[in-house]
Amino acid sequence: MENKDFDIAAFGGKRNEDIILPINSSLSVTLHQDQLKTTTTVATSRSFQEDRIWLNGKEEDITHPRLQSCLREIRRLARKRRNDGDSGVDSASLSHKVHICSVNNFPTAAGLASSAAGFACLVYSLARVFGVEGELSGIARQGSGSACRSMYGGFVQWIMGNKEDGKDSLAQQVEPETHWPELRILVLVASAERKPVGSTSGMQTSVKTSCLLKHRAESVVPGRMVEMTEAIRKKDFAAFAELTMKDSNQFHATCLDTYPPIFYLNHVSQQIISLVHRYNKHYGETRVAYTFDAGPNAVIFTLQQHVPEFVHMVQYFFPPETNGADFIKGLPVNCASLSEELKQGIGLEPMPKGINYIISTKAGPGPRVVEDPTQHLLLSDGFPKKTM
Amino acid sequence: MENKDFDIAAFGGKRNEDIILPINSSLSVTLHQDQLKTTTTVATSRSFQEDRIWLNGKEEDITHPRLQSCLREIRRLARKRRNDGDSGVDSASLSHKVHICSVNNFPTAAGLASSAAGFACLVYSLARVFGVEGELSGIARQGSGSACRSMYGGFVQWIMGNKEDGKDSLAQQVEPETHWPELRILVLVASAERKPVGSTSGMQTSVKTSCLLKHRAESVVPGRMVEMTEAIRKKDFAAFAELTMKDSNQFHATCLDTYPPIFYLNHVSQQIISLVHRYNKHYGETRVAYTFDAGPNAVIFTLQQHVPEFVHMVQYFFPPETNGADFIKGLPVNCASLSEELKQGIGLEPMPKGINYIISTKAGPGPRVVEDPTQHLLLSDGFPKKTM
Repeated sequence: MENKDFDIAAFGGKRNEDIILPINSSLSVTLHQDQLKTTTTVATSRSFQEDRIWLNGKEEDITHPRLQSCLREIRRLARKRRNDGDSGVDSASLSHKVHICSVNNFPTAAGLASSAAGFACLVYSLARVFGVEGELSGIARQGSGSACRSMYGGFVQWIMGNKEDGKDSLAQQVEPETHWPELRILVLVASAERKPVGSTSGMQTSVKTSCLLKHRAESVVPGRMVEMTEAIRKKDFAAFAELTMKDSNQFHATCLDTYPPIFYLNHVSQQIISLVHRYNKHYGETRVAYTFDAGPNAVIFTLQQHVPEFVHMVQYFFPPETNGADFIKGLPVNCASLSEELKQGIGLEPMPKGINYIISTKAGPGPRVVEDPTQHLLLSDGFPKKTM
Repeated sequence: MENKDFDIAAFGGKRNEDIILPINSSLSVTLHQDQLKTTTTVATSRSFQEDRIWLNGKEEDITHPRLQSCLREIRRLARKRRNDGDSGVDSASLSHKVHICSVNNFPTAAGLASSAAGFACLVYSLARVFGVEGELSGIARQGSGSACRSMYGGFVQWIMGNKEDGKDSLAQQVEPETHWPELRILVLVASAERKPVGSTSGMQTSVKTSCLLKHRAESVVPGRMVEMTEAIRKKDFAAFAELTMKDSNQFHATCLDTYPPIFYLNHVSQQIISLVHRYNKHYGETRVAYTFDAGPNAVIFTLQQHVPEFVHMVQYFFPPETNGADFIKGLPVNCASLSEELKQGIGLEPMPKGINYIISTKAGPGPRVVEDPTQHLLLSDGFPKKTM
C-alpha cells in the first residue's frame, strides 16, 4: 500500500533518461493514503510461469523497461544480501516469478502523479517480499523519477546528485508528516481526460529545446530549494505558498518555451490561478497557494482555518453538475457562508462544471504494509480477484 | 495615416519606463495599411484654446504623459530647427494649439498593437504639421515603445541601445516591404474582448518578478536577433517561421513566470498553436508560423501558395457563426478544398465560433500622407466629423 505525492518546488527534466537522473533537485509533500493511495500486492510462487502485472484491473506488459529496472534491481539487492549472509532474505522466492497487482483510487494519467505512487508502492512491496531493507529510493527513482520521493512521508526532497551512475540521486525526508498539522491540501480535479502529452515525452522535449529550462535548473532552483526547506522548517505559510506558486508557474513557463510548446494548464486551471490570487489579494495576505503538475488539476495548499471558506468559494465559482453531492471527497469540510463582499471582490464569472470534484487531504506517511489479508489484491492462486 | 506592425522576434520588457527603453532589441513586420491602419489628422489654429485629442470618436485626456512626451518632443525639435534657420519649419504653428483626431480600422486594446500604430501615426502627422523631418522613431518610442518600429515599412528592428538617455534606442529598417513579396500575414481575431491585463502594466510586473525574462533578454534574444535578420535577408521561410514561433512562445513563457502570472493565450490560442504544429507536421515541413502579442489573437505567417488551404483549414476547425460570410477580410483568398487525409491528420476537435474573422494581409510601407482631403478626420473648424 502506498500514497502519492505532489511537487511543491522545482519540477524539472531529466539529465539521464535511462536511469532517470534529474536536471535539478526537487521537493514534494506526500499526500495522506487515507484519501489518495495506490495499493499493490506482490506474490511469488514456484508455480508461476513468468513475471506478470495487472494495473487497475488490466494486465499490462511486464517487459516495460522501467518495470524491468525495478524488478532487476530489487532481485540484485536480494541476491547481494543473501550472498552477504543476511538471514532476512527469502532465498526461495529469489528463484520464483512474481505476480503483481496494483490499483489506484484516483484517475490514472490525469496529472495526479499516478506513476510516482505506483512505482514507489511496487518497489516497497517487492522489497518486503524479497526481504530487502534500507535505502530503496534509488530503485524507485529508476521506475519513475518522482517515485523516489514517495518512499518517504511528509516533506521530501529528491537530491539530484552529481554521480554519473546516479548512486547519489536519492530522496531524503525534510520534515515528517506530523511537522505541520495545520497544513491542508485540496486536489481540484479539473478533468479526468487523459493528458494530451505524457509527462515523460514532454519533459524530454523540454530538456532538448527549452533554454529557459536549462537556466531555471542551473540558476533558479538551487536557491529556491534552500528557501523552500527553510519555509517548511519554520512553517512560514506565506513564504511556502509564494515559492510554491512561483515554482509551478515557472515549470509551466518552461513547458511553453518547449518546441513545440506543451500546455498542461487549460482555461479551468487559469481560472483557478486567478481565483487564488484574487482571494489572497482580497484578504491582503497569502492564505492559499496552487501548484499544477503535468495536467490541468490544481493542488491547493492552505491552512486548516481557511479550508471551509475556500472550498465553498471554489464551489461557488465552479458550480458542480449535481447540486454539490459528492463534490467534496476526503477529509470532512465544515460549512461556510460566503459574504457578498467576497464574491464581488473576486469578480470572476462562474464556470459551471469546470471542476469535477475536490479531494480534501493532508500530508501523510510513507508506504505501509496492509496487514488485513482481505485487502490483498491477489487470491491464493496468485491471480487478481474478480471484483476488480 | 499609418499602418500597424507585429512582433516577429524578441518581445520584451522595458528597462526605463519613463522614456521607454527596452530590455532587449526586437524585430517586427509592418502590416499593409490597405488592410490594417490608423488614420490621424492633426490641425493647428490660432483659434484653438488648448491641445485636444479624439480617439476612435471619443475625446481622450491630452494630459496623458505619453501624449505629452510626443507633443513636447516634436515641438522642441521644431523650435530647434527654426532656431537653426530651417525654412521648412512652420513658425506660426509652433505657437498654436493642436487638435488631433485618430481612428483605427481594427479593435483597440485587443492585442492588435493599436498603441504602436497610433503613436507612430501621431508622431508622423505632428512632424508633417510642424515641418519636422528626419529620424522620428526615438520620439514615437516615447509614446509607445513598439511605435518606433511602425515608423518604417517592411521588416524593422528596434535596436535597444546602451545610452541612459535613450538617444540610441531607435528603429532601423532591415528590409523594405518589397523584399519578400510571397510572404503573407493572416490575423486570426480570436476575441474582441478587452484583454484582462494592459500590456504595459503586465510587462512592468514581468520585469520586476520574472527571472526567466531577465535571462531571455540577456542571453537568448541577442543571438535570435542575428538569426532572424539572416533568415529574413535570405527569405528562408522555415528558419524565419521557427524563430518566430519559439520567440512568441518564450515571451508568453515569461508572462507565465511573472508573479502573479499573466495569461494572454486562451484556449482558442492554444488550439491555433496545435493546429499550426500539426499542419506543419502533416506536410513534413514548416509552412506556417504563429505569433501572439499581448492578447489571444494569432498572427500567422505563411507563403502565398499555402494561404488558401490554411485559411480553409482554419475555417474548418473554427466553424464561424454565420456560414462563412465576412469570415475572411482583407486580401482576397482563393478557394481550396481540404482533403479528408488532411482533416484526419490534424485530428483536432472543431471549436465553433473560436475565431471571429481572419484579416488577410502582407508586409506594407511606412506612414503615408493622406492626400485626399475628403478623408481627413477634422472639419475646417478643427473639430471631428460627426460621422465618426
